[in-house]
Amino acid sequence: EDKGRLLVSCPDQPGIVSAVSAFLFEHGANIIESNQYTTDPEGGRFFLRIEFDCAGIREKKSSLQAAFASVAEKFDMTWSLTLASELKRVAIFVSKELHCLHELIWEWQTGNLMAEIAVVISNHEEARELVERLNIPFHYMKANKDIRAEVEKKQLELLEQYDVDVIVLARYMQILTPDFVSAHPNRIINIHHSFLPAFIGANPYKRAYERGVKLIGATSHYVTNDLDEGPIIEQDIERVDHRDNAEALKNIGRTIERSVLARAVKWHLEDRVIVHENKTIVFN
Amino acid sequence: EDKGRLLVSCPDQPGIVSAVSAFLFEHGANIIESNQYTTDPEGGRFFLRIEFDCAGIREKKSSLQAAFASVAEKFDMTWSLTLASELKRVAIFVSKELHCLHELIWEWQTGNLMAEIAVVISNHEEARELVERLNIPFHYMKANKDIRAEVEKKQLELLEQYDVDVIVLARYMQILTPDFVSAHPNRIINIHHSFLPAFIGANPYKRAYERGVKLIGATSHYVTNDLDEGPIIEQDIERVDHRDNAEALKNIGRTIERSVLARAVKWHLEDRVIVHENKTIVFN
Amino acid sequence: EDKGRLLVSCPDQPGIVSAVSAFLFEHGANIIESNQYTTDPEGGRFFLRIEFDCAGIREKKSSLQAAFASVAEKFDMTWSLTLASELKRVAIFVSKELHCLHELIWEWQTGNLMAEIAVVISNHEEARELVERLNIPFHYMKANKDIRAEVEKKQLELLEQYDVDVIVLARYMQILTPDFVSAHPNRIINIHHSFLPAFIGANPYKRAYERGVKLIGATSHYVTNDLDEGPIIEQDIERVDHRDNAEALKNIGRTIERSVLARAVKWHLEDRVIVHENKTIVFN
Amino acid sequence: EDKGRLLVSCPDQPGIVSAVSAFLFEHGANIIESNQYTTDPEGGRFFLRIEFDCAGIREKKSSLQAAFASVAEKFDMTWSLTLASELKRVAIFVSKELHCLHELIWEWQTGNLMAEIAVVISNHEEARELVERLNIPFHYMKANKDIRAEVEKKQLELLEQYDVDVIVLARYMQILTPDFVSAHPNRIINIHHSFLPAFIGANPYKRAYERGVKLIGATSHYVTNDLDEGPIIEQDIERVDHRDNAEALKNIGRTIERSVLARAVKWHLEDRVIVHENKTIVFN
Repeated sequence: EDKGRLLVSCPDQPGIVSAVSAFLFEHGANIIESNQYTTDPEGGRFFLRIEFDCAGIREKKSSLQAAFASVAEKFDMTWSLTLASELKRVAIFVSKELHCLHELIWEWQTGNLMAEIAVVISNHEEARELVERLNIPFHYMKANKDIRAEVEKKQLELLEQYDVDVIVLARYMQILTPDFVSAHPNRIINIHHSFLPAFIGANPYKRAYERGVKLIGATSHYVTNDLDEGPIIEQDIERVDHRDNAEALKNIGRTIERSVLARAVKWHLEDRVIVHENKTIVFN
Repeated sequence: EDKGRLLVSCPDQPGIVSAVSAFLFEHGANIIESNQYTTDPEGGRFFLRIEFDCAGIREKKSSLQAAFASVAEKFDMTWSLTLASELKRVAIFVSKELHCLHELIWEWQTGNLMAEIAVVISNHEEARELVERLNIPFHYMKANKDIRAEVEKKQLELLEQYDVDVIVLARYMQILTPDFVSAHPNRIINIHHSFLPAFIGANPYKRAYERGVKLIGATSHYVTNDLDEGPIIEQDIERVDHRDNAEALKNIGRTIERSVLARAVKWHLEDRVIVHENKTIVFN
Repeated sequence: EDKGRLLVSCPDQPGIVSAVSAFLFEHGANIIESNQYTTDPEGGRFFLRIEFDCAGIREKKSSLQAAFASVAEKFDMTWSLTLASELKRVAIFVSKELHCLHELIWEWQTGNLMAEIAVVISNHEEARELVERLNIPFHYMKANKDIRAEVEKKQLELLEQYDVDVIVLARYMQILTPDFVSAHPNRIINIHHSFLPAFIGANPYKRAYERGVKLIGATSHYVTNDLDEGPIIEQDIERVDHRDNAEALKNIGRTIERSVLARAVKWHLEDRVIVHENKTIVFN
Repeated sequence: EDKGRLLVSCPDQPGIVSAVSAFLFEHGANIIESNQYTTDPEGGRFFLRIEFDCAGIREKKSSLQAAFASVAEKFDMTWSLTLASELKRVAIFVSKELHCLHELIWEWQTGNLMAEIAVVISNHEEARELVERLNIPFHYMKANKDIRAEVEKKQLELLEQYDVDVIVLARYMQILTPDFVSAHPNRIINIHHSFLPAFIGANPYKRAYERGVKLIGATSHYVTNDLDEGPIIEQDIERVDHRDNAEALKNIGRTIERSVLARAVKWHLEDRVIVHENKTIVFN
């Protein structure tokens, strides 16, 4: 199809929408969906996402980009122009618990996650059968604290080899080093099994049980070097009560983890998430 | 303040956003918020709501309107340009149950409902004290099936006298005649105490109880001549269980009715609701 | 394990709990969980579900049943005593859409659905691979209006052959005849893709879209001979907006259908659902 | 009416329900509602709440209590027997923000909060008119860190004078000293405007905004000497997005604070909340 997406971020000032929409009109693009946000109409930062139809966009992409550069320069824009038909290549990291991987694959098969699943990497063998049955490459890579640097080096090579655009930690349960994280800024999506910033770190369900909360949550966020402190993309909760022990919370939580991660990945794949100062703007 | 709102609806075609945003830019208006929707990029209908800042808009309003008319004509637009500072005048119709009236007044006092409450009309006296204490005119008008035509005539006069823009039926419990409804198209907001289209008509809580539903709902909609069939603005639900009898459902439902109606009225007051073919587009 | 469940229903009168709990105490059973409900303390009907631990219950089951019969007689009880370790045998009927089947299998593998999946029956071949891979018998049986009676006869034979306790219609999309339904009263669980009683019958998502609802739902209920009118076990909803067309609603709805059906089946398997006058009492 | 409530907590062992229900039966009490929970069937702690009808309970209360003492002794029970007709006396502490007070009064007028509102105490004058109009005593008492001890002394005298059973901090915004707290263990109910344990302490909405959360919450809990660490009674959340600044969060949050606090107070008044090791068991 001929769908394109223009993402823009720049200092807010009058005339931006006018300039961008005039550009699209002049180049034969019809706006399908448009979202904008400004942190402050007076001197804030302006964000714009436009989805448009443009006949023959695949051929015209680079000429469009070249032409837009002068608009962008005038307004000091950070921008990108992507094609919906150029699917992002996803690597999924997974551990022994497969519910998030299952959901991603299910949504991908249903056509809700428009992506190429380029590779699945795991420090366990549990996912192999499911993954290889779908003809997706599966790589087992042992992982623990002691061999982290070495393993990550191999993982980075693998990601390069598979030409990966986005990394999804679908309950991978390993901490990544700053080297790894900085190699993929705002492109590593994690699911944390708590309503952040509550229960940062290990064993959130156990701690939620001990605190006696009446709701448990899950949070999908971009990974930064501060553990569980990266920009939040999506969160959701489920009601629990005094009868639910830590094991029950874990069980109930799986359903939220699945849907929260799937939504976050979907929005990222559709270029709906913009990171700004450790927060996300989600145009959904 | 200098906030304005432009609402546009027209046949979809390339160039609309470009033309409108160029117009606003040329007239010194800075877009704060923009929402758009098309029923179909190919030959559908296009809807646009833009909120903008424009210094001295109060003085410039009629010249802006005059200037926009030529843009509008080119694209065959239905449109309106309103000022946030020109508050809509609201008439609230109420019966004996005051929870919805209470909520509207509370939200109005908090500053969440930017409106003038012009008058409260009731076929009972229960609301008088609350209303008059706030120096809002209160009119008692007996109402029942037999005297409907006569009463509505007086009500319409009253609405004219108070220069009312929007009528909120906050559990008024009386059916309106086609004459009354057609005098205020898409400007009468009702709250129905069910999840429409389930339980259209009388006694929805009793019928919900008898059906054994596990969720009850409330629906706010514009009133048309088909009972409970008008365009839905907002809905919400609450969980119930087998222990809740009809009385309990009514009680639980009050909280949903309150918040659903308050949200619908708020969105209407901010020109966020557009009616299209018995459905609403809600730009919130 | 040694877990048992006692389900009781009888005319309400003083002394029932006392009699039942004395019985359990005297027979060495320790109550783990107890739920009760009365439609009316004065002359209503009383319902009780007790989950208990009783060492060696497998050997003692028939003597317990014999002993309880005299308590039951005194209070005119309808009752059953089941063992958690005696898993119910489930038949899943499915059509082309597999999301509900997927969810049931996933929850079953996770240990959340304590059951034997005895057989999967479908009028299409889509589910075969998934089912047979898990060594669950799969039977293709063509089905349509014209051959209904004949097909159902074979299906009933199959259900008998597989000694099935409960039938789950996981988006089977075929109407069952009264003969079939009456053969399994309150043991056929359906998922309907709307918030019943809204949108009974065919194409609920299309009709929801046309009505312009702001929430869509799913309902799991026991099948009776009145289409979509059987006792509701569980319902849930998801928020939608004007941008979601019928296809989008269908897509969003899948997630609710999955979780609503899985919860209903789980509760049925754990003997938590009691049908009373076309409603359910759910002790969860 | 003749409704009574029996609350029991004791080491779990077989025979408790049997003994209690036999006692009630023998004394002419008919169980209306019964809830139980055990932390562990093997050596855990057992909790029971029974609501019952007993003709002439007002006259028989002390004889019932005397008789139950021997049952209680046998099982080493902590217990209480209360009458629904003996309404708890509530003191509401409030500051300048009145939305929670408003909701409590509204629910009280509707008959959902069965209590006597004995007194309202505030360190501001905003609430006086609303409170005195309802003929509820209102006491202004200046409050700040420097005069805390002195003020609390007067407050405690006032609470004694008004014979208060439960204290509701309806956005009181002052920290209480250990002396005050220990004078009313598990009887001071607070509303904290965050989803605890996230955003303990001051300015939760501002911090939620800065963290970029996608849901905000409110938590009602019993006050202990650890700030915002007391047993949680109820929590709820509302969805927000990047457009909502700290002020908007505060605004959205008010609706959750209101309903969460009202539910927690209602459950406390109906003796549905039991505190166990810094958690609550809520029999609702």
